[in-house]
Amino acid sequence: MPRKVSDIGEKGLIKRILGKTRKSDFNSIFLDNFSFKSLSDDAALISLGEQYLVVTSDMLLKSTHFPDEMSNDQIGKKVVTVNVSDLAAMGAKPIGIIISMGLPRNMLLDEFEEMIDGILDNCLEYGMNLIGGDTNEAHELTLCGTCLGIVQKENVLMKDGAQPGDIVAVTGSLGLAAAGFEVLFNRSKFKDLNSKYKEHVIKHALNPKARVEEGILLAKSGSVTSATDITDGLVSEIDELINASSFGIGITIYEEKIPISKGALEVASKSNKDPLEFALYYGEDFELLLTVKKDIFEQIKKEIPLYKIGTVTSSGKIEILYKDGTKNTLKPRGYEHLSRK
Amino acid sequence: MPRKVSDIGEKGLIKRILGKTRKSDFNSIFLDNFSFKSLSDDAALISLGEQYLVVTSDMLLKSTHFPDEMSNDQIGKKVVTVNVSDLAAMGAKPIGIIISMGLPRNMLLDEFEEMIDGILDNCLEYGMNLIGGDTNEAHELTLCGTCLGIVQKENVLMKDGAQPGDIVAVTGSLGLAAAGFEVLFNRSKFKDLNSKYKEHVIKHALNPKARVEEGILLAKSGSVTSATDITDGLVSEIDELINASSFGIGITIYEEKIPISKGALEVASKSNKDPLEFALYYGEDFELLLTVKKDIFEQIKKEIPLYKIGTVTSSGKIEILYKDGTKNTLKPRGYEHLSRK
Repeated sequence: MPRKVSDIGEKGLIKRILGKTRKSDFNSIFLDNFSFKSLSDDAALISLGEQYLVVTSDMLLKSTHFPDEMSNDQIGKKVVTVNVSDLAAMGAKPIGIIISMGLPRNMLLDEFEEMIDGILDNCLEYGMNLIGGDTNEAHELTLCGTCLGIVQKENVLMKDGAQPGDIVAVTGSLGLAAAGFEVLFNRSKFKDLNSKYKEHVIKHALNPKARVEEGILLAKSGSVTSATDITDGLVSEIDELINASSFGIGITIYEEKIPISKGALEVASKSNKDPLEFALYYGEDFELLLTVKKDIFEQIKKEIPLYKIGTVTSSGKIEILYKDGTKNTLKPRGYEHLSRK
Repeated sequence: MPRKVSDIGEKGLIKRILGKTRKSDFNSIFLDNFSFKSLSDDAALISLGEQYLVVTSDMLLKSTHFPDEMSNDQIGKKVVTVNVSDLAAMGAKPIGIIISMGLPRNMLLDEFEEMIDGILDNCLEYGMNLIGGDTNEAHELTLCGTCLGIVQKENVLMKDGAQPGDIVAVTGSLGLAAAGFEVLFNRSKFKDLNSKYKEHVIKHALNPKARVEEGILLAKSGSVTSATDITDGLVSEIDELINASSFGIGITIYEEKIPISKGALEVASKSNKDPLEFALYYGEDFELLLTVKKDIFEQIKKEIPLYKIGTVTSSGKIEILYKDGTKNTLKPRGYEHLSRK
């Protein structure tokens, strides 16, 4: 039977594209002062003197990215945040976003206006503006953002530099968005959940923020060896850093060090789920995952709140050291578009 | 009854977005050396010394842009051409494209590969490369391209500079894509159409080309006062130039001067349609529409094949002078997404 795109999933498809682009004479496309660095992730770097212009693009669709619980304002905010988060992971300052829209015919004008307000509010929050876009008719609401940012070349954060001995850290609590969606999708189970926790986790699910300031500060520190944003789950992103590195690295994380907030713990407990699952395998937290030179970590931590969660090894594997002292190897199984699951 | 997005159409929606962005403090977003010029069309200009980086984004969807008659290779080529055409209209040289994809689960891997090959072939044709992208699951095939180009600031072509007295010209024959789709959608009617004509019009419908070289040459000429690409039909694009101009212009076109190829005439004749309708109201030809200083027109024409089709007036209207000497005012009714029709 002929194979379908869902048989190989997002990562397999991207590998096929990269295989083909490497075959074409990519290196001949260096023009004047404009040289490109194309990445295995969603961003392209354009060389401009001492800076890179970073260009990233992310498409969001109703059926995959916008649950019914999300307001139009939150939908607009999310397309901005998702794109800005890719820039944050590279230490770039956002300067503008273009948004192409596919709109269902029957979308109400009021809904459209709320969505645009959400887009513009978040642009302002991230210190940039909406600089272009187009509108089309679509079966399902589809928003494609293209975000531009700038970063000093010497500071840019990439996925590929982690080395054995580096410390692995994240910028904040993990599993909050997962806990939020758990509450939203099973409201009845959580009637007696403390409203403070409820609001906290739901806010992270419906109105996430990108770690722009942290990304810029980390980039300026000059001691981050690799970085990415956590959109598809911690283990999946760790796998990305391992695959990007040319040093044949592995990463070991420590269960006891993984920051999981009280709210996420409560939600997991009430739904009989493992809070560690929320933290390891669910995405949408938009925290940054990074590796830092060991001897400089404590110094950076004074300026930017960071949680050490593990170390870079030379094992070639993702390993977890549980609280009880046992060790296990983890397989990446974060959210992947078009995978069979 | 609450109004829907389809009640006001694409142009109305874009007006609403522009109204809101003008309210926000856009001018505070000038960063370091990066100032923006945002346009009423789909492109943003980023100031880089003596050049502009031009960024344009266009989303294409199966139900609107890819008829069943289009192969996967042609689908891939089209998303590149549509984006490159926006750059051509500004006189910019394409340097790279990012393509975000929404793929139906059941798309065959072979179809996907053919589409990627089409994308890469056309990138090569336009002298640039695919520099990024992402894949998602979607109800219908959705491709969103973001194309980057460069142009000398002094040369950039904009929509807004036409002045009374200028000559209105196009870079090639109009109505070819319309004729091609007419044949494709009504095959039985055209069994005895000369196969040379048939192939010619179908090629223009399914595998259009962007006028990149012409755009660059026209930009360098320094005498083009305004320009756009014809994606939504000649009259609709003329309306865009009139609206963009701050000189209160009108445009008069001459029926006898509008270039309509023999193939399009034959198709119109066999389907009992008016070939002028093909040329005026159907889009997808991707020729450039431009206005040129009158005294330099003949000189430019020596270097770049141009068809003079009219003149810029101060009437504020779009007028047509028919072959029989009568005159009429035309209303823009080209293709508009989300309009009621």
